[in-house]
Amino acid sequence: MLVKSQVKYIQSLGQKKSRDESGAFIAEGPKIVSELLQEIPGQVQQVLGLKEWLTDHAKLLNGIEAIEISPAELEKISHLQTPNQVLAVLRKFEQVSAINLKGKLVLALDTIQDPGNLGTIIRIADWFGIEHIICDHDSADQYNPKVVQATMGSIARVKLLYTDLAGWLTEQKTTIYAAALEGENITTMQKPVEGIIVIGNESKGISPDILQLVTKKITIPQKGKAESLNAAVATGIILSHLAT
Amino acid sequence: MLVKSQVKYIQSLGQKKSRDESGAFIAEGPKIVSELLQEIPGQVQQVLGLKEWLTDHAKLLNGIEAIEISPAELEKISHLQTPNQVLAVLRKFEQVSAINLKGKLVLALDTIQDPGNLGTIIRIADWFGIEHIICDHDSADQYNPKVVQATMGSIARVKLLYTDLAGWLTEQKTTIYAAALEGENITTMQKPVEGIIVIGNESKGISPDILQLVTKKITIPQKGKAESLNAAVATGIILSHLAT
Repeated sequence: MLVKSQVKYIQSLGQKKSRDESGAFIAEGPKIVSELLQEIPGQVQQVLGLKEWLTDHAKLLNGIEAIEISPAELEKISHLQTPNQVLAVLRKFEQVSAINLKGKLVLALDTIQDPGNLGTIIRIADWFGIEHIICDHDSADQYNPKVVQATMGSIARVKLLYTDLAGWLTEQKTTIYAAALEGENITTMQKPVEGIIVIGNESKGISPDILQLVTKKITIPQKGKAESLNAAVATGIILSHLAT
Repeated sequence: MLVKSQVKYIQSLGQKKSRDESGAFIAEGPKIVSELLQEIPGQVQQVLGLKEWLTDHAKLLNGIEAIEISPAELEKISHLQTPNQVLAVLRKFEQVSAINLKGKLVLALDTIQDPGNLGTIIRIADWFGIEHIICDHDSADQYNPKVVQATMGSIARVKLLYTDLAGWLTEQKTTIYAAALEGENITTMQKPVEGIIVIGNESKGISPDILQLVTKKITIPQKGKAESLNAAVATGIILSHLAT
């Protein structure tokens, strides 16, 4: 059973302001919640699930507060179009501060605003072993329920740093890559040992102040007529050539 | 001014049944509508737009029925969350029948159900010069407004064939590729001159009856811990290695 104040609290975690104040966020659905319980049990504050799910996953829930709720209650607190068995409330991660770039590739996101795109990019980074993503303050919030959903659990492994991106890039002493029209062909170029790969906004691309900090332009070869690629798709293609 | 029956008709084009009966579909927003007017003006039956947009694009509208509507009317007929200046009603394309695969790469979609994914895959195919996509009947409808939107205009150039996919694949005499766990590494394998690349369902992957028709398994190398990649992202990665 959920009391009204709990329902309100969980609903409020759909808003960034409430997440910032409480230091908490939510994740939903059996696949993601199971993965987070396995990967980062220490971050999970509370699991709210249907009776059957809680019974089936008793081992995973070891020591974690679990509340049995009805389908109607799940419907009330869920941020999914189709509520799916279980919802977890998690504590936000510790803020990432300094990142050691030595021998590593990282992503830098210049205003990726669509939560689905950000979540998909986190999932791609995780696939290719990228440990850090640096975001400007106008990018979507990593704790937005739609972002968490789209990461499919990868939010547990990839660390995000939100910062003044232009200022941060200025301080780095490694190569800054970005996709541009007349850059080096990613399918034939030498794979970098380390560096920062900048991904631009979905419709505006990379902003001028960031673009002037880029030290190496790269290009995804095009054979057809589409004007551009989706930001997450472009990220996947670039990493499959440069990070493997 | 729009009469009630026109409003109802355009609203009804959100449903596949109505699109099948009328042979029409809609596209929205200045970018996509402009591109379709340039690329396939013969398919455009009607353009409904705000006064300013129609005035600015008079040349493109040459000979096409254009109806000036108010922002409130646009709101009524739009399928977008944020209605955007203009909506076009188009005639569906002629059904693709036989496809000549000689020297060509094509995509085959095994139950891609998410409209956003299908639209993004069409856009990716267009970028890499893939002219045809074969879909099973359980894939999303190419004329779904969300699919059209996600193609960003590429729907004008890539031809889709909906068919019994297993039956169709059985009849083909070329290599059938599909992503699997232990296939050949796409980043190092020889690029194919022709063939069919099968992309599987978002959560279930490739169905068993299709998988047994696959003649060459391929793999996107993985360095991190994410379990899988989004279907559209995987398509982009595969094509960037095999179709460039």
